[in-house]
Amino acid sequence: MKIKVGILGATGSVGQKFIQLLENHPWFEISEVAASERSAGKMYRDAVNWFMQTPIPEKVAVKKVKECVPTLDCQIVFSGLDASVAGEIETAFAHAGYAVISNSRNHRFDPDVPLLIPEINADHLKLIREQKYGQGFIITNPNCSTIGMSLPLKPIHDRFGIEAVHVVTMQALSGAGYPGVSSLDILDNVVPYIGSEESKMQTEPLKILGKLEHGQITAADIKFSAQCNRVAVIDGHLEALSIKLKTQTNVEEIKQCWANFKGEPQELELPMAPKKPVVYFEEENLPQPKLQRNLDKGMAVSVGRLQPCPVLDFKFIALSHNTVRGAAGAAILNAELIYKKGLLN
Amino acid sequence: MKIKVGILGATGSVGQKFIQLLENHPWFEISEVAASERSAGKMYRDAVNWFMQTPIPEKVAVKKVKECVPTLDCQIVFSGLDASVAGEIETAFAHAGYAVISNSRNHRFDPDVPLLIPEINADHLKLIREQKYGQGFIITNPNCSTIGMSLPLKPIHDRFGIEAVHVVTMQALSGAGYPGVSSLDILDNVVPYIGSEESKMQTEPLKILGKLEHGQITAADIKFSAQCNRVAVIDGHLEALSIKLKTQTNVEEIKQCWANFKGEPQELELPMAPKKPVVYFEEENLPQPKLQRNLDKGMAVSVGRLQPCPVLDFKFIALSHNTVRGAAGAAILNAELIYKKGLLN
Amino acid sequence: MKIKVGILGATGSVGQKFIQLLENHPWFEISEVAASERSAGKMYRDAVNWFMQTPIPEKVAVKKVKECVPTLDCQIVFSGLDASVAGEIETAFAHAGYAVISNSRNHRFDPDVPLLIPEINADHLKLIREQKYGQGFIITNPNCSTIGMSLPLKPIHDRFGIEAVHVVTMQALSGAGYPGVSSLDILDNVVPYIGSEESKMQTEPLKILGKLEHGQITAADIKFSAQCNRVAVIDGHLEALSIKLKTQTNVEEIKQCWANFKGEPQELELPMAPKKPVVYFEEENLPQPKLQRNLDKGMAVSVGRLQPCPVLDFKFIALSHNTVRGAAGAAILNAELIYKKGLLN
Amino acid sequence: MKIKVGILGATGSVGQKFIQLLENHPWFEISEVAASERSAGKMYRDAVNWFMQTPIPEKVAVKKVKECVPTLDCQIVFSGLDASVAGEIETAFAHAGYAVISNSRNHRFDPDVPLLIPEINADHLKLIREQKYGQGFIITNPNCSTIGMSLPLKPIHDRFGIEAVHVVTMQALSGAGYPGVSSLDILDNVVPYIGSEESKMQTEPLKILGKLEHGQITAADIKFSAQCNRVAVIDGHLEALSIKLKTQTNVEEIKQCWANFKGEPQELELPMAPKKPVVYFEEENLPQPKLQRNLDKGMAVSVGRLQPCPVLDFKFIALSHNTVRGAAGAAILNAELIYKKGLLN
Repeated sequence: MKIKVGILGATGSVGQKFIQLLENHPWFEISEVAASERSAGKMYRDAVNWFMQTPIPEKVAVKKVKECVPTLDCQIVFSGLDASVAGEIETAFAHAGYAVISNSRNHRFDPDVPLLIPEINADHLKLIREQKYGQGFIITNPNCSTIGMSLPLKPIHDRFGIEAVHVVTMQALSGAGYPGVSSLDILDNVVPYIGSEESKMQTEPLKILGKLEHGQITAADIKFSAQCNRVAVIDGHLEALSIKLKTQTNVEEIKQCWANFKGEPQELELPMAPKKPVVYFEEENLPQPKLQRNLDKGMAVSVGRLQPCPVLDFKFIALSHNTVRGAAGAAILNAELIYKKGLLN
Repeated sequence: MKIKVGILGATGSVGQKFIQLLENHPWFEISEVAASERSAGKMYRDAVNWFMQTPIPEKVAVKKVKECVPTLDCQIVFSGLDASVAGEIETAFAHAGYAVISNSRNHRFDPDVPLLIPEINADHLKLIREQKYGQGFIITNPNCSTIGMSLPLKPIHDRFGIEAVHVVTMQALSGAGYPGVSSLDILDNVVPYIGSEESKMQTEPLKILGKLEHGQITAADIKFSAQCNRVAVIDGHLEALSIKLKTQTNVEEIKQCWANFKGEPQELELPMAPKKPVVYFEEENLPQPKLQRNLDKGMAVSVGRLQPCPVLDFKFIALSHNTVRGAAGAAILNAELIYKKGLLN
Repeated sequence: MKIKVGILGATGSVGQKFIQLLENHPWFEISEVAASERSAGKMYRDAVNWFMQTPIPEKVAVKKVKECVPTLDCQIVFSGLDASVAGEIETAFAHAGYAVISNSRNHRFDPDVPLLIPEINADHLKLIREQKYGQGFIITNPNCSTIGMSLPLKPIHDRFGIEAVHVVTMQALSGAGYPGVSSLDILDNVVPYIGSEESKMQTEPLKILGKLEHGQITAADIKFSAQCNRVAVIDGHLEALSIKLKTQTNVEEIKQCWANFKGEPQELELPMAPKKPVVYFEEENLPQPKLQRNLDKGMAVSVGRLQPCPVLDFKFIALSHNTVRGAAGAAILNAELIYKKGLLN
Repeated sequence: MKIKVGILGATGSVGQKFIQLLENHPWFEISEVAASERSAGKMYRDAVNWFMQTPIPEKVAVKKVKECVPTLDCQIVFSGLDASVAGEIETAFAHAGYAVISNSRNHRFDPDVPLLIPEINADHLKLIREQKYGQGFIITNPNCSTIGMSLPLKPIHDRFGIEAVHVVTMQALSGAGYPGVSSLDILDNVVPYIGSEESKMQTEPLKILGKLEHGQITAADIKFSAQCNRVAVIDGHLEALSIKLKTQTNVEEIKQCWANFKGEPQELELPMAPKKPVVYFEEENLPQPKLQRNLDKGMAVSVGRLQPCPVLDFKFIALSHNTVRGAAGAAILNAELIYKKGLLN
């Protein structure tokens, strides 16, 4: 008997990715798909403009789309809702006793909501106890560009202490949803601006890397500076990072950190977990979005080109699949963690 | 009577750009096109795989391609030669009395060769006196990505003193020449590596911004760190810059620096000179390669998104046309400067 | 004293192209820009999301946007309105005495409205006399893909008689307006469908190539079959054509037809007219959108690869700039023709 | 015990695809990788510029690359060799007793070599008996664009008789090998020419659809006309087809033909065989390369947009994965067929 899960915002781009990734999940099965009023009542295949590169799973294709109200037949809801509506709907579902696993930004900075990357801050799950939703609760994952950066930073921070991070991103089109970026804006072009993305990258890691004490999180003391760019890539965010450390070290020791890095998802052997959260490539021209974005089901972050930085201390390149490791896959991993740890009612 | 000029490497991508840009030049006219042995003897239109977006100028199309030996009927040679052969050929032309205006990297660090950006270091032209070529001489322009960065840095450095520069580039395909980057390597992709580009960006500005005293240049004392990426853009290098200054200032003062910035090309009203070398855009999503690369004949550098940097002091975006301001147009501007200053024999 | 012209739909993609192309027009000057209620009242530069590759002409940038009601201070209105509103607005302007030069599809098949390509059917202008708008009148240009095909077909039809035309298009993104095609739909993709485009290509040429007799047009007797595809090209529609003729001929005679082809725009030396409406390229891999779309200000149609067709009689490739020759440039040429022929009140 | 197979041209693009597709093959295992002298002697991972989107299979990565001489330890060789060398090498291997399964064009028109698409002409395998290679033999698959067209044509031809086929292709970049098409030639562009492709599409189907009688093939009596274009798509050839039939029919009957179509690969349940060789999509904008190229392991041909053609009889769109169904996958299916039919020594 699998756990029943529902998808909120099932016709959107994150919703489609949830459905694609959950197709043969060993623990979860999609019992409900919910979307806006406009779609509700239709068969899913008729309501959706499906643009995943694999066909709609047959069982989901014929489901009737429901409205996003907390009367769905499931224990967990995965929310891929647009931020304009996600806040209230997710709150309603939590109050009604559902486990809400959200990819939206609305509740990320609620003081009692974990901003979870299981390899980094699984202990933040204890925050749920502070929530006032009764049986239900809300867990969020960070923004896609934050996740791809935070995973390789975590083991370095633990061992050497990070003082400052400078990051310039080259982000994929799928991060903007659908229809998202006009083709006329991006073919033969780069757009050096993504609304509110720089601010997310400068604030979210402080909570993620923060310490939970006495029921609240103290933000990490690291300076972040981000410049975010949109490039003509379908999937896969590439980030050029430079870091300043509190302790002296060298390239080999940092590579060692990454090689040894693992967290609860690896120890618990969660289905969605990559074998290694961070994989280093020695080739001088890797990682590349097209070549490494699908590494280990799209859940591993690829890093490369680690070298001393003449201005800060070290610089390197990180790549992650923005809609898998950075969105739907991240949320599924979060759900697997709470299930495995017995936090599901 | 126009000055006769020859193009070395006339069938290559930089050579083609020289020919396109010189089509209606008020002072110069192309009297000779020279290329490798393989092309020599053919009519230019038959020797070239022309891929500029305007037709081959009729007068050049029917010229016979010569070999790159210093018996050409012209005073100036523009060199778009590949670095594998440029060094010796340019030396030979200088010895034979030609004014060699080179876009190649070979002589850039010769202590007696100016690495010239006329708005920045026109005074370095005096170095020519130190050259031992008799009547001839060699002048080089920097690498494309260096030029696009150095122009906006210059007035800031003059006024506030720059201590460190961190730059991440998103560079266009035309920078790799033709055939250059395989379509399979760049469609739906970014390549986070361009051979020797990071090193050029970290060393060339030190000479350009250096001081000429007693016949030699003292390198500027600034730390540069570069990470170079190739993106799916035809023309136009975009650079994300962060800088650390020696003096406190603010966003408005820096914009003022750019607004007031001009150099000898503007004062002498050189034909290829942009009215303003650096143009600031207030729009939050500009400059973009597709929209601003051709600004003022492709010779102006566009900047935007200036804001405080939480890690260094300020950050901004710079865009320049890599084959115009960064290559052929740069060389033509150099030639105009030496002509106007009476340095041509 | 230039003729005052107004742009209807001035903030849209066709509207922007009108403004760009009219910047230095010898006869016309833009006195009014009009758009939807949402934009009306704003300064043009604030109302528009300008995405042309040259800056907004300064005089237009500071104009106040008006609503699309027939109280504009101008003689001619160029309509780049969306088809959802164009019909009624254009009718209102005609009734109010304006010369309406429309790029929209609404009035194309009105029996008294010329569907004009000046090189082909300038005589259809006489239809205006049949219109019941008083001093005003409406002239339309065909759909972009129709224009690019009709010009090379015209001289062949005149000389040899065309029985059937089979065309497969590869159309540019700008044809869909802005934001138009989502980048996620077209990067690394082709979309083999453009709503109602095939039908336009199969019906419009019959009116264009038809005969005007006794105040009405008899459709040409040619069979057209079109398959329309959207490709990842910014500007320039490429069309693969095969034709069946009523008379035997050969490749050389057809090339001769194109070489000799000219119409009233060439004879009257209209400013927007290309020197030759159709230009043949002998190179085996030309024409290409990126290389030939701007030929002769974007107003010439490039053809190539003419060869016998084993199924019909001959096949070839045609390329035209869809927003210049196929839209805004076409309308301007129409306006020039009526002005030069004294049809403007 | 799996059958040992070798890959000729293992470092090229087709060779890489063979290795990727054979990774977990139930019958075959790669025992040898062979390539040019330049690569021979190196470990495969060091010799190859791997650009598949999944990692190199570990077992192959550490194999030593051999030269392409018939001393390889295997029964079957898959040849992805360049046509400039494939002819002689394949002959040598056949003489030495190997089963040569070639993707190269060299032997396609040898009168005793089957040009095999197992769903269409499995009976042509009997031709092998006419070969004079002793135990060895050569089997070829057609050109990628031919395969994608021939599969949907076959059941129509069988039932209604095809008189003429007009096809315009929009072909993917991977069809040109690596490095293949320069990014500067294809970004924001279409190239309306692929060397010798039109000729292949006009001749190969005649042999494939021909009849084998008395040890030789009589070519089919159908007229083909092809116009071939290269578009900015990584994988997946899209073809716009129009056909003239000998018998009257309608859209529904043709769809029925496709729905019922199957061949020996389906009956024998070959591992690489798609469940249905041709799949019809009712959506008005499908099939698309990005969405359907991987259908059924990339081995099914997707068709759509079937409608009457005003010039011929019917028109439709076909899509196939050019390096899977059109190359490496096609060859593997051929090998599976000969193995299952007991033709392997």
